[in-house]
Amino acid sequence: MKITKFPRSINNDHQKDIVLSQADLAKPVKTSETPNKELDRRKFMQTSFLALATTPVMALADESVKNDFPAWSTTLGKGLNEYGQPSKFEAGTKRGIAKAYGDLAPGTGSARTPIEKLEGIITPSGLHFDRSHNGTPEIDPSKHQLSIYGLVDKPLNFSVENLLRYPMISRTYFVECAGNSAANIIAPQPIQATAGTLHGLISCSDWTGIPLSVLLKEAGVNPAGKWIVAEGADAAGMSRSFPMEKAMDNAMIALYQNGERVRPEQGYPMRLLLPGWEGNMNVKWLRSLKVTAGPTHTKDETSKYTDPLPNGKARQFTFELGVKSIITKPSGMMKLPSKGLYEISGIAWSGAGKVARVELSTNGGKDWFDAELDGPSQAFCLVRFRAPWTWNGEPAFLQSRAIDEHGNVQPTRAAYKANNAVDGRYHNNTIVTWAVLADGSVQNAYL
Amino acid sequence: MKITKFPRSINNDHQKDIVLSQADLAKPVKTSETPNKELDRRKFMQTSFLALATTPVMALADESVKNDFPAWSTTLGKGLNEYGQPSKFEAGTKRGIAKAYGDLAPGTGSARTPIEKLEGIITPSGLHFDRSHNGTPEIDPSKHQLSIYGLVDKPLNFSVENLLRYPMISRTYFVECAGNSAANIIAPQPIQATAGTLHGLISCSDWTGIPLSVLLKEAGVNPAGKWIVAEGADAAGMSRSFPMEKAMDNAMIALYQNGERVRPEQGYPMRLLLPGWEGNMNVKWLRSLKVTAGPTHTKDETSKYTDPLPNGKARQFTFELGVKSIITKPSGMMKLPSKGLYEISGIAWSGAGKVARVELSTNGGKDWFDAELDGPSQAFCLVRFRAPWTWNGEPAFLQSRAIDEHGNVQPTRAAYKANNAVDGRYHNNTIVTWAVLADGSVQNAYL
Repeated sequence: MKITKFPRSINNDHQKDIVLSQADLAKPVKTSETPNKELDRRKFMQTSFLALATTPVMALADESVKNDFPAWSTTLGKGLNEYGQPSKFEAGTKRGIAKAYGDLAPGTGSARTPIEKLEGIITPSGLHFDRSHNGTPEIDPSKHQLSIYGLVDKPLNFSVENLLRYPMISRTYFVECAGNSAANIIAPQPIQATAGTLHGLISCSDWTGIPLSVLLKEAGVNPAGKWIVAEGADAAGMSRSFPMEKAMDNAMIALYQNGERVRPEQGYPMRLLLPGWEGNMNVKWLRSLKVTAGPTHTKDETSKYTDPLPNGKARQFTFELGVKSIITKPSGMMKLPSKGLYEISGIAWSGAGKVARVELSTNGGKDWFDAELDGPSQAFCLVRFRAPWTWNGEPAFLQSRAIDEHGNVQPTRAAYKANNAVDGRYHNNTIVTWAVLADGSVQNAYL
Repeated sequence: MKITKFPRSINNDHQKDIVLSQADLAKPVKTSETPNKELDRRKFMQTSFLALATTPVMALADESVKNDFPAWSTTLGKGLNEYGQPSKFEAGTKRGIAKAYGDLAPGTGSARTPIEKLEGIITPSGLHFDRSHNGTPEIDPSKHQLSIYGLVDKPLNFSVENLLRYPMISRTYFVECAGNSAANIIAPQPIQATAGTLHGLISCSDWTGIPLSVLLKEAGVNPAGKWIVAEGADAAGMSRSFPMEKAMDNAMIALYQNGERVRPEQGYPMRLLLPGWEGNMNVKWLRSLKVTAGPTHTKDETSKYTDPLPNGKARQFTFELGVKSIITKPSGMMKLPSKGLYEISGIAWSGAGKVARVELSTNGGKDWFDAELDGPSQAFCLVRFRAPWTWNGEPAFLQSRAIDEHGNVQPTRAAYKANNAVDGRYHNNTIVTWAVLADGSVQNAYL
């Protein structure tokens, strides 16, 4: 292939027009006449800006912008730093903490992602939800190893240093706790709280790690090896069984999260990722993988995370999470300041693969219209949905309903209640309703 | 459409097989017989794990994994926290600081992204590079506004609060400083330093904000308005001109970065984003946009960021950054511990759109082969490239060469030298060479 030197100077009208001597720099410069391109989402944006032209604005003379300089425009700024933090004015954007046993076990419980304050699909690593059964162990990576044993030809120990030499893949995957949104099932009356407090056990990161299949092929799985039990190095010894098919399909040993090494609360120095499957199966602080003939029926998959059914039996191993969506703006505890145009925005995902579309209703499910999916919909990944909405000042019931590539549709709360025992609470992927009252306040509601 | 209740319980063999009473839980459970799927990158992974089977491993009995429990496996972990930080064992993953005037102006200079320690394509916000001319202003968003004026029908001031109500879009875009990699042009002998120190003025984030076209249409651009000058609220008053075509094409007022509000070092409460164009044009702490007939020729686009040419003239307005790639693993100051298989990994990008492919050479450009692009290649976004490489213990010269969707090819250092004056240094997108010596040490080299 021919090497083009400085190809970017070709077809760059601005640049070609203005190769000047320094003395010429005062002269006006011709600009390109190439026609404007239109925005991809032109229609949406036109709808929006026309309506928003009614928001209060202040007439401004050319000069006035120069008059008033705040202190930060006239003084030295802060020095360069090695690892940045958010603005102090955003201190309210933090994880909401729910301790299961108070200060008896300060690490047992959950820290929830404030989804109502976030945008896009990436969760900042410092705000990724954390559900821990014994707090966060502080693991020295030089003293940690991953063991693969059981029904294999060659049991193996891997140091972290050796694992970092392996070929890697990067994928953007969500992780959701099986107990996310449980309050909306077990509370007889809707709890008034933020979207993050009610539904914040969902986060999404750009994970990089080693396909588990690579390590299993190296150990050599015996024909009798049909399942694997993964165990964490935390003192709770979180242990979960999963089928060999998943291990060989898309399971990952994650070493990096959003570019840097996995955070302590997410399993440093490594965690298991089973894309689309319930959160606790993505075992953090991973220390061992034992290949077995069948499931191990650990405490974490029998006494917990099973779904009691109306017939007195329990559904065990609800691995794949349901298709789900949540409107984050507007959402619980917010207040709309005035009538007019707003953007409805939220997140959708499916444990079965890609989200195909998200439907919205502003009248509690009587009528539905399609939201716009912002950016590509990736398998086992959050997708951001958006739609313009003009609030006329009357009460409204905002709902979102996600449909995935397999035709799975987000169910109603009533359907969950009909299909589970009265004390059921896990795997709640039902439609969320936000009621907008006449005064603009937004409340959690059951419909 | 028909609502499927609990669709995920359909076609879930595990789940259907094991609806059990609690008393049944001890029984072994049949597993699904669905055939394994293959990994997308099967061939690559097979190459890798077969070779890596030679890395030292320790034989392990089923029992032995249970014997030795470190303290973190037997004690309470750390408590839940509101905003997480990296492991203390990763304290070495930090921005490298280069102050231009020492402590006279501690905020003037650059903080560089340690690209050799990162994976995937997202740069953690705390490690995004920072090039500042007067440090980081601490801006109170309630006292900040964005003014749009000049050749418009209706000059407008926007409060941050009002902007947060506007329709938004999310896009993953890189930002690169025009001075990135300058040391490899101006230093007569290659400087021995890490990839981040030499080339770390490149970062990539999931940005969310308002298309600039929406705000300009609201203000009403006069027919004579062909350019815009953007000004920052920092005391350096960074100001850059750009054509109206770019503003109407894909310019964004970014309010969110990787999910949370834009970090102070990246322009809190808002910055301009001109996808693919040189870093300083993406004006941070944005306070005003003046619509003009032509470019303003500010200090930041005349005395700086112009490219002196061999003919004594200067190229002004090199807006679009060139197609570029850098191998981050292995890279400068690393040492390969032994012969054997390694993954060559790095990042590629183009100011013109999408990267089409990345070629690799291990013999200094005599022979080239294609690297694998990991994940979708998005316009104005980093893409991660990977390839397995078996080091035979002899000296090698590792190079990467990116080609974008328009056929632009990353040039050589010699080509840059031939096309620029002796004191040229900006916009260096030339091929980087890492020399691997016989002892495994990796050095920066010119070829």
